[in-house]
Amino acid sequence: MEKNTYPVEEWKVTEEKFVKDWNYRNETTFALSNGYIGTRGTFDEGYPFTVDEGLEGNFINGFYESEHIRYGEWNFGFPETSQSLLNLPNLKKTTIEVNGEMFDLKAGEIVEYSRSLLMNEGIVVRNVVWKSPKGKEVKATFKRLVSLADKNIMAIQIKITPINFEGTVKFSSYVEAGVENHTRKTNPLVDYGPFGKHLVVEELKSDEDYILYQGETKNSKLSMACGSVVVTDGHMTECVIGEEDGHTSYEVYAEEGKEVTFEKMIAYTSELDMPKEEILPFIRAKLSEAKVLGYDKYEALQKEKMDEFWSKADIKIEGDEELQQGIRFNLFHIMQSAGRDGRTGMGAKGLSGEGYEGHYFWDTEMYVLPVFVYTDSELAKQLLNYRYDTLDDARDRAKVLGHMKGALYPWRTINGKEASTYFPLGTAQYHINADIAYAFKLYLDITGDDQYLIDRAAEVLVETARVWADVGCFAECKDNKYCICSVTGPDEYNAIVDNNFYTNLMARENIRSAMWALDRMKSLDEDAYNKLVEKLELEDEELEYWERIINNMYFPFDEKLQIYPQDDGFMMRKPWDESKIPEEKRHLLYENYHPLFVYRQKMSKQADAILGMLLHSNFFTEEELKRNYDFYQTVTLHHSSLSTCIFGILASQIGYDEEAYKYFSQSARMDLDDMHDNFYAGIHAANMAGTWQGIVFGFAGVRSNTGELTIHPKLPEQWKSYEFCVEYHGSDMRIKIEQGKVTYKLLNQVPITFKSNHEPITLNKEGEEYVQEI
Amino acid sequence: MEKNTYPVEEWKVTEEKFVKDWNYRNETTFALSNGYIGTRGTFDEGYPFTVDEGLEGNFINGFYESEHIRYGEWNFGFPETSQSLLNLPNLKKTTIEVNGEMFDLKAGEIVEYSRSLLMNEGIVVRNVVWKSPKGKEVKATFKRLVSLADKNIMAIQIKITPINFEGTVKFSSYVEAGVENHTRKTNPLVDYGPFGKHLVVEELKSDEDYILYQGETKNSKLSMACGSVVVTDGHMTECVIGEEDGHTSYEVYAEEGKEVTFEKMIAYTSELDMPKEEILPFIRAKLSEAKVLGYDKYEALQKEKMDEFWSKADIKIEGDEELQQGIRFNLFHIMQSAGRDGRTGMGAKGLSGEGYEGHYFWDTEMYVLPVFVYTDSELAKQLLNYRYDTLDDARDRAKVLGHMKGALYPWRTINGKEASTYFPLGTAQYHINADIAYAFKLYLDITGDDQYLIDRAAEVLVETARVWADVGCFAECKDNKYCICSVTGPDEYNAIVDNNFYTNLMARENIRSAMWALDRMKSLDEDAYNKLVEKLELEDEELEYWERIINNMYFPFDEKLQIYPQDDGFMMRKPWDESKIPEEKRHLLYENYHPLFVYRQKMSKQADAILGMLLHSNFFTEEELKRNYDFYQTVTLHHSSLSTCIFGILASQIGYDEEAYKYFSQSARMDLDDMHDNFYAGIHAANMAGTWQGIVFGFAGVRSNTGELTIHPKLPEQWKSYEFCVEYHGSDMRIKIEQGKVTYKLLNQVPITFKSNHEPITLNKEGEEYVQEI
Repeated sequence: MEKNTYPVEEWKVTEEKFVKDWNYRNETTFALSNGYIGTRGTFDEGYPFTVDEGLEGNFINGFYESEHIRYGEWNFGFPETSQSLLNLPNLKKTTIEVNGEMFDLKAGEIVEYSRSLLMNEGIVVRNVVWKSPKGKEVKATFKRLVSLADKNIMAIQIKITPINFEGTVKFSSYVEAGVENHTRKTNPLVDYGPFGKHLVVEELKSDEDYILYQGETKNSKLSMACGSVVVTDGHMTECVIGEEDGHTSYEVYAEEGKEVTFEKMIAYTSELDMPKEEILPFIRAKLSEAKVLGYDKYEALQKEKMDEFWSKADIKIEGDEELQQGIRFNLFHIMQSAGRDGRTGMGAKGLSGEGYEGHYFWDTEMYVLPVFVYTDSELAKQLLNYRYDTLDDARDRAKVLGHMKGALYPWRTINGKEASTYFPLGTAQYHINADIAYAFKLYLDITGDDQYLIDRAAEVLVETARVWADVGCFAECKDNKYCICSVTGPDEYNAIVDNNFYTNLMARENIRSAMWALDRMKSLDEDAYNKLVEKLELEDEELEYWERIINNMYFPFDEKLQIYPQDDGFMMRKPWDESKIPEEKRHLLYENYHPLFVYRQKMSKQADAILGMLLHSNFFTEEELKRNYDFYQTVTLHHSSLSTCIFGILASQIGYDEEAYKYFSQSARMDLDDMHDNFYAGIHAANMAGTWQGIVFGFAGVRSNTGELTIHPKLPEQWKSYEFCVEYHGSDMRIKIEQGKVTYKLLNQVPITFKSNHEPITLNKEGEEYVQEI
Repeated sequence: MEKNTYPVEEWKVTEEKFVKDWNYRNETTFALSNGYIGTRGTFDEGYPFTVDEGLEGNFINGFYESEHIRYGEWNFGFPETSQSLLNLPNLKKTTIEVNGEMFDLKAGEIVEYSRSLLMNEGIVVRNVVWKSPKGKEVKATFKRLVSLADKNIMAIQIKITPINFEGTVKFSSYVEAGVENHTRKTNPLVDYGPFGKHLVVEELKSDEDYILYQGETKNSKLSMACGSVVVTDGHMTECVIGEEDGHTSYEVYAEEGKEVTFEKMIAYTSELDMPKEEILPFIRAKLSEAKVLGYDKYEALQKEKMDEFWSKADIKIEGDEELQQGIRFNLFHIMQSAGRDGRTGMGAKGLSGEGYEGHYFWDTEMYVLPVFVYTDSELAKQLLNYRYDTLDDARDRAKVLGHMKGALYPWRTINGKEASTYFPLGTAQYHINADIAYAFKLYLDITGDDQYLIDRAAEVLVETARVWADVGCFAECKDNKYCICSVTGPDEYNAIVDNNFYTNLMARENIRSAMWALDRMKSLDEDAYNKLVEKLELEDEELEYWERIINNMYFPFDEKLQIYPQDDGFMMRKPWDESKIPEEKRHLLYENYHPLFVYRQKMSKQADAILGMLLHSNFFTEEELKRNYDFYQTVTLHHSSLSTCIFGILASQIGYDEEAYKYFSQSARMDLDDMHDNFYAGIHAANMAGTWQGIVFGFAGVRSNTGELTIHPKLPEQWKSYEFCVEYHGSDMRIKIEQGKVTYKLLNQVPITFKSNHEPITLNKEGEEYVQEI
């Protein structure tokens, strides 16, 4: 089958023809979100796709359904109820009848077709010229946005122009609330639903041009409300409200060559935001406001928001339009996917589909968050607030795992409680704790937000550190070094190992950050410090013990190769012989091989030790980094989408420029070219963010791990130039790298100091530039 | 609550009063079996015990029901259907009405009560004198046996004597086929049923004095048939057959002081033994034969079988009647539980209850089988035949685990397919393969059965060895020694470890045995050898590789302590601090702590490395054994019933006599005194067999691991003497150890050569004795 490709365009992603087999994937490409509402790129007029061809999807971030989870054999601490992002009632659907014939891509003839994601405007536009079976030709334009200005609003505009006739156009606006998740399709290994309908109607009514719905989930007992209001010159001809479906129809007379416009405003909310009794009135009020504003106003507001975003986050590449398109596509999707209200995170697949059941993983903190820390620190803070918001759940979870102090964050979750049902690749990934701590520390380092340190970050850093101080021990047989056993590192092909290099390194730095945070807090605000110490019942002996761990962390080391093995057992695993694996099974090892078979092979699914070395590269010599990179290069399969971007960044740092570029190219267009062949289930948010990292941390060599901002810019030889912005301690700076030089420009009035290729540079005034030869 | 104890009697176990709270446990104590039928010690007249107080249980060895297993998250190779020993229709129930009043232990007054397991006769007898609410006194005697002479037959005899009246006695014989397993109670962590009724009636009818039943399981689609026939002087007064229940009633007139007798013969079979259409006719014919023979005949035959058994298996102890009783109780239960037809094994709980779902584990090969190898080699062979019978399933399973050659036996099973639903403590226990190989080799060593080597054993030894040659590799980082990663050893508190000492040792010996078997087979029957080599496509390179593994197996070693750690990571786990565990949770770690918490502690649930060292003690110096014993003594919690007996035997070998005796005492009466507080769910067959091993391998120091029979007898100072028999290469020998001497007596005409305390001894003639000072 021919593969779906999009023409290379700087600011657009365009589908040039309608092919049913490409639909499922395109629904993700054209998915829209604002971090609260997410909607898949389905057709406004509807289309009867099978479960293998498409998935209507509308989501509210953080709104989930639970099921009782059954295990062949249950063990203590296994989660008993699931959390799945619930697919919610669809209100987008608007059928169109022209002169009595239904507008339908299956019937008649598609004369012209194009659909574009306009990344600089934040909208999706579809243009269709369609000839009906009876020969009537119409031009139809569909515009859609999910508002970045108002989190509850989605807006649609449809314009119909009769080309060779005049007559009535009938718009029927639907609510479809009998929704089911496609669990078996999108999460095939998961066996706990939700299967069937899980939202029970509490109210469904029509009221003038409004359709209003309220429903409650069967098990999690959460209520949500949604509704739509139309803006039209037509007159209502029909209003049918059933038990969980309904529609209102409007007719308008259209002259030949004259467009008629139909607009629809849609709103969603849930009782996670307000008392249950307020949600439906809220929707009614919100829609009434939206009806007054109209679609065009939302589109204008959207453009403002997008301009704001791109002004800080855009990376301009001269010399490679393909990659330019890839990175903008990636940035657009991660931007729109992130929770912004401090009580929601960001799913590994954003809000673009049901994949991974909408769960939040470490992807947010380690891949996505660094992008926002440097480009939109307020958004970054909101994502961190979600973790702070669930700190008590993490405290409870630590106790379940036998840690009497501290907090252990769940490997995957929506509501803050552990939702991983397979602990070797779930709960055993303790590194999530250190990853979250890393993200808090990074935020503090880049923003200098001391108030946040005092208010929230210090508490998180201390509580996560405590688990590290309990999970391991100083082992006599390892020269009294601190060992951490029975954990799983980032690499999911090696589970339940001892002394995972990444984990031990990140754990040590977690503890170090906690000590740093306490010291700094004490110096900033001793009262607050004392209160925190009291609240956490923190004792001096704990800090002494932490110090001992920091100074005595154990790391596996191979004397012969002079490298850090991924874990204690890694080097004695079986040499990986891919030739023994049938080609069609190679990229789907867990689908075709027992976990024990996978665990026994000397190979990694993804960057693991390498990620640790990259994040804390200041602790390693370049020679060490090279040796380790060379080794892991030979044993890493990159079966995870989280891998190539990391290898690319490190390759750049150690001067492996060709490899760096190769890895970057793979990461940048991974989703746009559907390289993992599963884009239909949702975006790979982590890799998308990894692309930004690939340029900023990779080619431009931006680092902060020494406590100051350092930059080592390079220009890939394939490019003419590239430029991007960073926020640092309140300063906004643009960095442009060209052949032979780098230009730093301060964009606001906050002075900035940093090092470029070891040269200390300070910019003091707005507009001030500094050019350095490279 | 007062604890149930039985008076100390040499050949009996007697319940002296009826206490409802002790019932559940007593049902196991008085369970009867013949390795084919198993029935729990429930009351003939019935009693309405709740699910927490009792479980009517009737089982056919190997007859199971399946359920689709649901996993929170499924992985490749996880079993998709379960196997559970199915609780079958009960035919024992016979209610008794005397003069219109129902004989009922809840009503009236129990004047006298005793129930005894007569271990030398193989029957259970209950005597009750009961006064009815209206003052009628009767003496009732109930006898029951499950025939060792005819595997399909269970026989019951009831005698009723009116003491202070005369009148009618009405016996009603029931079939109760609406049976349900008590899965939630007996296997609480298991979540796949069978829940509810799983046997669908195919036929249920009465025919004169016969009740006949046939039913089929819902999912495994196996049919079974059973029936009963009564032998009575009474006349039938009622016959009621419902949909899945029925009864026939008989009245007989009883004079004061004169007993009336009511007998019932019960038969079971299934289509695992014969074509489905024959099962019900078979039952009819079998019952008709049994009716003619009558109860007394079966009791006489039972006595013969028991005499035969005890003549070889009994261990007589002078000086400790408590332990004497304990060991006989244990021997009785393991004898009656073992499958004897070559296509069934022996459940970890025999056929005494639903515990562990009736699954067969390594318990059979490593604990029970050595007892039979030395005392009833024909029975031992039948248990091995079961493994040979399922060799193809093991071959299939090896492939699922990624091994393209060889066979991997399932950790738990009934039908030969893997049934463990939690692979870290299931499939990961690869040592089952070496355990089975060990048992085959032991059988060959002790019996000298060369034909069996040729016919079956060599094939099993080679196929199991092949998996060991594939699972590991020669690791450069371990001096090119052969390492085996990601397995679980016997110790279930340390899962998915690298280089488990026991596993590596047993694997090496598995391979060594395979090479030995091939050599021997070649010299015995080259034709057969060539055929086997061809069938298995065995190549010379494989044998060379095996040789390399044997010579280069890696074993973890702690230089400082000079001991063999249980696995590579054991020594760096957290020192176990029991004081941090609330007392009520200490013996139920997995019920109260997450697996990861358990894995991280430096402790063992049970004998692990120690078991390997015991089985192959010839490879270790006494000093080594002592050092390792001393170490493991401090880190072993003995939370498994498979542990203390092993420690006791090794303690004996290294001269720790006091400890040896202490451990032996715990093992010997573990079930009789319900030390693990879960006897209700069924016997602990492995520990029961471990008691015999404790004496024969422990105190008497019998070994064969050097290729010859060696004995190092000791008399525990608490005893006057003890004696037992062993079979060796066709010879039967009695060994009696007394103060200062040991007497060897040949019981048959096959000469025997062995070493006692290093002195070579040969006995040539039947009755010949040799006395050695000790």
